[in-house]
Amino acid sequence: MTCVRVIRESLRAYRLLGSLALAVAAGCSPPPDPISAVAAADALPSWNDGAAKTSITEFVTRVTQNGADFVPPAERIAVFDNDGTLWGEQPVYVQLAFALDRVRALAPEHPHWRDTEPFKSVLAGDVEAALASGEKGVAEMLAVTHAGNTTEEFAAIVTEWIAAARHPRFGRPYTEVVYQPMLELLAYLRANGFKTFIVSGGGAEFMRPWVQAVYDIPPEQVVGSRAKLEYEVRDGVPRINRLASLDLVDDKAGKPVGIQQQIGRRPIAAFGNSDGDFEMLEWTTTGRGPRLGVIVHHTDAVREWAYDRDSRVGTLRRALDEAPARGWIVVDMKSDWNVVHAFERQHP
Amino acid sequence: MTCVRVIRESLRAYRLLGSLALAVAAGCSPPPDPISAVAAADALPSWNDGAAKTSITEFVTRVTQNGADFVPPAERIAVFDNDGTLWGEQPVYVQLAFALDRVRALAPEHPHWRDTEPFKSVLAGDVEAALASGEKGVAEMLAVTHAGNTTEEFAAIVTEWIAAARHPRFGRPYTEVVYQPMLELLAYLRANGFKTFIVSGGGAEFMRPWVQAVYDIPPEQVVGSRAKLEYEVRDGVPRINRLASLDLVDDKAGKPVGIQQQIGRRPIAAFGNSDGDFEMLEWTTTGRGPRLGVIVHHTDAVREWAYDRDSRVGTLRRALDEAPARGWIVVDMKSDWNVVHAFERQHP
Repeated sequence: MTCVRVIRESLRAYRLLGSLALAVAAGCSPPPDPISAVAAADALPSWNDGAAKTSITEFVTRVTQNGADFVPPAERIAVFDNDGTLWGEQPVYVQLAFALDRVRALAPEHPHWRDTEPFKSVLAGDVEAALASGEKGVAEMLAVTHAGNTTEEFAAIVTEWIAAARHPRFGRPYTEVVYQPMLELLAYLRANGFKTFIVSGGGAEFMRPWVQAVYDIPPEQVVGSRAKLEYEVRDGVPRINRLASLDLVDDKAGKPVGIQQQIGRRPIAAFGNSDGDFEMLEWTTTGRGPRLGVIVHHTDAVREWAYDRDSRVGTLRRALDEAPARGWIVVDMKSDWNVVHAFERQHP
Repeated sequence: MTCVRVIRESLRAYRLLGSLALAVAAGCSPPPDPISAVAAADALPSWNDGAAKTSITEFVTRVTQNGADFVPPAERIAVFDNDGTLWGEQPVYVQLAFALDRVRALAPEHPHWRDTEPFKSVLAGDVEAALASGEKGVAEMLAVTHAGNTTEEFAAIVTEWIAAARHPRFGRPYTEVVYQPMLELLAYLRANGFKTFIVSGGGAEFMRPWVQAVYDIPPEQVVGSRAKLEYEVRDGVPRINRLASLDLVDDKAGKPVGIQQQIGRRPIAAFGNSDGDFEMLEWTTTGRGPRLGVIVHHTDAVREWAYDRDSRVGTLRRALDEAPARGWIVVDMKSDWNVVHAFERQHP
């Protein structure tokens, strides 16, 4: 098509859509939405046919078709945990890998780290020993590597790091170690009028620089743990400083709080993979009307990792135990997904 | 047009738009956007021709047209104060009117209020005396009328109140005492690819129940002062309790903090009306690239109120004094707006 014709035809298309809107307003039944119709044909090619896939597509059909379970598009809020749900979290969760790299990068400015745990072990290359120092040590590493700069400086640091860092097992950028079936699911839900949000225990500002490119989710649709911030005009230049304490830990019972504070409505669909997501799933699926709760169960030791009850990265006990009674769908990565990672993608 | 033809033609329109997208991807210049073209024709009928209207439309043209100042749609974030910018805030701001009505409604459950200021004065019908008790008294009234319930109960209370309450001067629902020129501006910006957010000192949960209907802004695009929240399962039913302390006062230097925490990007356009908006305007307009800062100046004592420097509801000193040097546009309500309130609307 020539460019001139493109312009002429696109104007015609807009006019037709305008007429359509008027006709619908005048009492016609709405025509089938071509976007969802196309999407439904094979929107989830990396999902094997089975109970999990069927439960998801049946839910979407129920809430989008006219009937008792119809949900207006504005109410179609879907929330996704990130670590272990949208991308990998093994052998350590990605934000911790970032913190460890930052400890190494910042070490010259902190000579006392050579004699102080857990920094000493990190700098000696013994991450296991560093992590063995417990939650307090990890929290300290996260605090010193995530504060003391402005929000714009931190975004630049994350952007540079995520472009250069490689996953230790797969040798790929972390942004390619995302789950292909979940990318398809995000797109499928959006094609059906859903608004997709990330609700993660990870730092919101660690995710925002790259989520648009990777998940097609804009920064303002990211709910995460958040640092206390301070607005300051220094030498005539406004800046927002990241302070060393947390304003919200967006995990466990913090997830419904983060959802309410930032989104302000109760989701109708929630996706998680650990007990850190239990309350988010509970809050979502106990609302009135059709609800969807999904747990991604890491069962594939060959293509990924197999873990649940006693994992260091994301214990999954209570949510797994109560899933059947609560009607939550448990996705078995090994049998339900024919492709795991985006970098394995074979579909054109 | 018959319904069958509507369906056939609309499918054709979608296909044309698909071809258009492919053609553009293949190197054609994008055609003029028919939505903005229509909108620009007379998108702001309640605005008189003049410097303010011209500055706004010229800014929108600059950032939407190809050229050095083009801003991708995703970055077109516009933030609006609410009280005094989108709706009235006289004789008292609306959330305070709500709190006063709640004090009256809850009084039977609190017999000691009859002897305790500022409640005593409110119940005696002397609001002026109650407000004279100062910020501490007002804060106490806000706290007791805004906490002690769940988020869903509070939303229901607000919804019921806002439907029944009437503005004391205009005798209209508060949701009609909104500024018609600002409604047009919101729609005009959205038609040009902007995403519009409210960033208010008012409580986010006080605004969310009605903003979609009144401003066409969804709840998740409301940043406001926020209560501390607590997730709880009581008698087997999940709930989110509103606690009596504040998590964020989204005013003054709190506005850039709220913007960063919730939106996660720096806006390119900000609209306010008081010194409480100074930092939001400063943060917005000192970023790189084209920026727009607008102050709504209440100058119309006949159709509305005239106030600025020493007003009880929203002192406007520093922002007004520094507006010329900072390039902020000052909208003179009396001369720039030919219609003030939505209920006066004369345009079809």
